[in-house]
Amino acid sequence: MPYQTDNIFARILRQEIPAQIVFENDHALAFMDIMPQAPGHTLVIPKYPAETLLDLPAECAGEFLQAVQTVAAAVKQAMNAEGIVLMQLNGPAAGQTVPHLHFHVIPGSIATLRQPHAHTPADPEQIRQIAESIRAAMASSR
Amino acid sequence: MPYQTDNIFARILRQEIPAQIVFENDHALAFMDIMPQAPGHTLVIPKYPAETLLDLPAECAGEFLQAVQTVAAAVKQAMNAEGIVLMQLNGPAAGQTVPHLHFHVIPGSIATLRQPHAHTPADPEQIRQIAESIRAAMASSR
Repeated sequence: MPYQTDNIFARILRQEIPAQIVFENDHALAFMDIMPQAPGHTLVIPKYPAETLLDLPAECAGEFLQAVQTVAAAVKQAMNAEGIVLMQLNGPAAGQTVPHLHFHVIPGSIATLRQPHAHTPADPEQIRQIAESIRAAMASSR
Repeated sequence: MPYQTDNIFARILRQEIPAQIVFENDHALAFMDIMPQAPGHTLVIPKYPAETLLDLPAECAGEFLQAVQTVAAAVKQAMNAEGIVLMQLNGPAAGQTVPHLHFHVIPGSIATLRQPHAHTPADPEQIRQIAESIRAAMASSR
């Protein structure tokens, strides 16, 4: 199936719908998951229109993983987290719900995460405050 | 804490202990998890001595994620899997059990994975046969 340009992350990339963005460069965007599996749950997506990791061109891999590293470090610092779980689901059969490649960056332990997702959105004001602290952590480490 | 050179993945990299290796290049090694969360569960590690993703130098990010892509594609093909779950745990507090950066490549769904790991090793002969089919998939896609 070709890339679906109307998916929610494509619309966030086009700024058609709002998100609590914590990182952006020429290659990637990171924003808060509105149904977090733990406070601080952040998503990192490439700007390239890839549905899964297998659709990302090899030449985009470095910039994308570097963005994931940057975001993971800031989330760790902002949430004062000892552990960071990365998760990335390829295909609806894996549990992927939005057909644009995304890495989940989640503070905490794989043993205690809500699986697979919260079923209700978190409080937007709480998410906004957490996003603010992640942006601050990002700025302080530059 | 500095990188611990006696961890089991460092020993696999030094060929001090055996593993069912399915991929190797100058930058990365992939081998079967002996306590799979699902059949086909494969681990991809960088040759660089990084404990977590945050310890991997930015200049190693591209080659490493490209290796993960290559392995994920071969596992998907060999296992005839519709979904592929990637997981990567940073720090003991996240559930990381071996202090060398590793990506889990697991066929199936996040909803039905054994969490966090099987508690007993899988049948070595079954693992050997699966590794063989992943190596064959890798060879056929080159």
